[in-house]
Amino acid sequence: MPTGALPDHSASSKSSDAGELSLDPADWEEFRATAHRALDDAIDFLRTVRERKVWRPVPEEVRSALAAPVPTEGQPLEEVYRQFQDLILPYATGNIHPRFYGWVHGTGLAGGIVAEMLAASMNANCGGRDHGAIYVERTVVDWCKKQFDFPAEASGLLVSGTSMANLIGLGVARNSLPGANVRRDGVGDYPRELTGYASAEAHESAAKAFEIMGLGGAALRKIPVDEALRIRMDVLREKIAEDRRAGLEPFCVIGSAGTVNTGAIDDLDALATLCENEGLWFHVDGAFGALGVLSDSVRPMLKGIERADSIAFDFHKWMFVQYDAGCILVRDGAKHRAAYSMRPPYLNHLQRGLAGGGDWPCDFGPELSRSFRALKIWFAMKEHGTRKLGRMIDQNCAQAQYLRGRILEHLELELLAPVQLNIVCFRFHPPGLDDPRLLDRLNEELVADLQESGVAVPSTTRIGGRLAVRVAITNHRSRMVDFDILLAAMLEAGGRRIAGSAAV
Amino acid sequence: MPTGALPDHSASSKSSDAGELSLDPADWEEFRATAHRALDDAIDFLRTVRERKVWRPVPEEVRSALAAPVPTEGQPLEEVYRQFQDLILPYATGNIHPRFYGWVHGTGLAGGIVAEMLAASMNANCGGRDHGAIYVERTVVDWCKKQFDFPAEASGLLVSGTSMANLIGLGVARNSLPGANVRRDGVGDYPRELTGYASAEAHESAAKAFEIMGLGGAALRKIPVDEALRIRMDVLREKIAEDRRAGLEPFCVIGSAGTVNTGAIDDLDALATLCENEGLWFHVDGAFGALGVLSDSVRPMLKGIERADSIAFDFHKWMFVQYDAGCILVRDGAKHRAAYSMRPPYLNHLQRGLAGGGDWPCDFGPELSRSFRALKIWFAMKEHGTRKLGRMIDQNCAQAQYLRGRILEHLELELLAPVQLNIVCFRFHPPGLDDPRLLDRLNEELVADLQESGVAVPSTTRIGGRLAVRVAITNHRSRMVDFDILLAAMLEAGGRRIAGSAAV
Repeated sequence: MPTGALPDHSASSKSSDAGELSLDPADWEEFRATAHRALDDAIDFLRTVRERKVWRPVPEEVRSALAAPVPTEGQPLEEVYRQFQDLILPYATGNIHPRFYGWVHGTGLAGGIVAEMLAASMNANCGGRDHGAIYVERTVVDWCKKQFDFPAEASGLLVSGTSMANLIGLGVARNSLPGANVRRDGVGDYPRELTGYASAEAHESAAKAFEIMGLGGAALRKIPVDEALRIRMDVLREKIAEDRRAGLEPFCVIGSAGTVNTGAIDDLDALATLCENEGLWFHVDGAFGALGVLSDSVRPMLKGIERADSIAFDFHKWMFVQYDAGCILVRDGAKHRAAYSMRPPYLNHLQRGLAGGGDWPCDFGPELSRSFRALKIWFAMKEHGTRKLGRMIDQNCAQAQYLRGRILEHLELELLAPVQLNIVCFRFHPPGLDDPRLLDRLNEELVADLQESGVAVPSTTRIGGRLAVRVAITNHRSRMVDFDILLAAMLEAGGRRIAGSAAV
Repeated sequence: MPTGALPDHSASSKSSDAGELSLDPADWEEFRATAHRALDDAIDFLRTVRERKVWRPVPEEVRSALAAPVPTEGQPLEEVYRQFQDLILPYATGNIHPRFYGWVHGTGLAGGIVAEMLAASMNANCGGRDHGAIYVERTVVDWCKKQFDFPAEASGLLVSGTSMANLIGLGVARNSLPGANVRRDGVGDYPRELTGYASAEAHESAAKAFEIMGLGGAALRKIPVDEALRIRMDVLREKIAEDRRAGLEPFCVIGSAGTVNTGAIDDLDALATLCENEGLWFHVDGAFGALGVLSDSVRPMLKGIERADSIAFDFHKWMFVQYDAGCILVRDGAKHRAAYSMRPPYLNHLQRGLAGGGDWPCDFGPELSRSFRALKIWFAMKEHGTRKLGRMIDQNCAQAQYLRGRILEHLELELLAPVQLNIVCFRFHPPGLDDPRLLDRLNEELVADLQESGVAVPSTTRIGGRLAVRVAITNHRSRMVDFDILLAAMLEAGGRRIAGSAAV
């Protein structure tokens, strides 16, 4: 590393340092000792996670202690750290644990602790300008473009997650509409009402993006799904034609690459062809499923994703990177830039110096202040390599099939959806108990029982109106045995509730 | 910390661990050694920052090395870290340095390294659910509400920065419009065109929010400023009346609490009264200035901010917290929730278990995946206390006045705007050189000279059409002497350029 020593200008000073404040440690060696102790504890916390409960409720006295008055006076870092250890660390979400399968939460990586610590020491603002972090983000985006066979002129931006990525990608679609300047004049001036399309199983973040973009949530049409829970192409075609006949303007279709409920993947190739023929923007919500391109078993199911106009996905799910880390890729980088770039005088771009360096990330999205989240992704991809990351995805899918098989062995358990990827939806359904509302309540209680026991964390959803226990596996710490433990605990809790009938 | 040991269910397993993958370190002690080495280096990097150049350009060979092919195979963490040290760390943005004054970048805190490392070990997803991190975020938001005298029913959300905070706050204003369901039906169905108002010196992120929200950037009217660069109330009143006469629907006014160019603070009290009388939403963009409420010298200038409907600000600027960390506060929490909350079945809220816990952060904004950024803010406020943080703000303002005084001593330097807060806009203007375009080019080159020399980093903007060297001080490491060094280097570089006239 270059040392870059500087000439001493301080001789010209008229001032004195006396009494000047700083927030740096008064004693750097004391700071160093506290930081190393915290690091050791963090590593131990991670290494011993399997020995602990997945999750525990935050006790009332801890909540009270956290709801402390505004700290007007400071206290030693060591003391703040001690409070963290007592009040916060024991009550983590639980997703670092091998038996966390709730929602779609990635596990995180040990190397991510190092990457985040280093990013914090640099404290880069990645909104723009010409510095190392910007090149790292470009590299990570380029690596992603290659995974999806996107062309060189494609663009990309790291974001907090797919909710933001969907908003940005759909914003490019809206702002790129020909024959109007939606960016300047708004959608109210657009001659026809704009509509978009997604399956009824699509994630609601797409509808939220429609709301935020001023199109209204109702302008996103929910198309029914087939038996594999994929968008029905025939109904989609008909709905687009119907909206056109009604004088509306269909402008985009959102394909799901791994639905949130069951991991279903729409027929992306058919959607790409339809969008091409109909002149519609093809956006893919691939929150967790898109990174299946890294896996030999999932890649074939994603055929057509390489034809998308924009792809949204997360690194913190199936690449296991620390929260938060998502990405939006746009095939036509010029349209992406035109949708968001804004360079007022205080963001003027210069030929040289720190204000140089070509495109800035703020040219491609709403954010001007951006953390250096590229670093943890760069670390993850380099330390583990895309092949092993792909094999981890394979393993999670195999675990889902294993769990499916074990569920089918039990008369008291009922599978509620096909297992196509890494998600298993099922329920406890003892023979003879057929009241739908009772079954829903029973399974809701069982999920809470499991969570509160600390043995495992599934979550719930609804499949065909029925409450499902949902196990979503984006976890590199899970072993096959963990799914045995999950089922044993569930059958035990179910049996207990059935025996003590009042509790059902 | 409770140990939470678990019963052993593994006896029931049908599976074997043989051949199962994980991304955990093969050797935890080797990982520990690398992590500690990285931490020591990070601390040294911070402690010795004053001895290094503020910024250095990324050399061509480093750019090439970073633009490496996709890493298909992994490599040891130690080796990835070595590459980080060679290719990334030396090329930081520079804002941790005592002579970084470009744009408005905060310095970061040593304790922030510890907080980020701990957050990475927990890997919480703060979109929702019932776990420790959520309570920490609530506490931080509550502390902020108290700083602005906001009522108990106010709500808040941590975000990446004020660009996002502006978007969210203005989104609440739009979605709360009476007599329509903008969220469901979009702005196209709204009977009249919606308009908003901000000063010509307001940050462009407000206009970008209007673009994203489908209102169109042109719907945000730019109102001229007075000599102190504050919004002109008379013109504002007239413009609102004029738009109403034209059949438009004014719905919000954005007050600036510290403009990006000069730190001007609009008359927030007058704006609050106007908004009350006119029935408009009063949003304050206080990116860096709003936290002036912590400072005895700045607080009086912010009178009226406590009457806002929503306030947007950053912790990574004038609270020096690591990137990224901003906040939106909304006086009427119910309106805030109604604008964004969405609970599909897979986000169902339960009475107990991990899916409990009342309001979730995802109910208040577009993001469902959210990092645990509350932790670094909690650490900063507790370690340093609000009083000392306020005194740091005072010190930065005093430094701006000191710099102003020194500029006035030099015939070759010209002040371009009043110094009201922590920003000094000036230029090198040697007597006799009066060609406006030449002066602009000269000062642009001088800023790049300074940046490339590594002595100091100011940035540029335009004040009244003239290119200004802009020094924005949100830096807890700066001492008075640093401003002497900045001016000495600038005068030296200016003299050199004037002497070698070809270079001007």
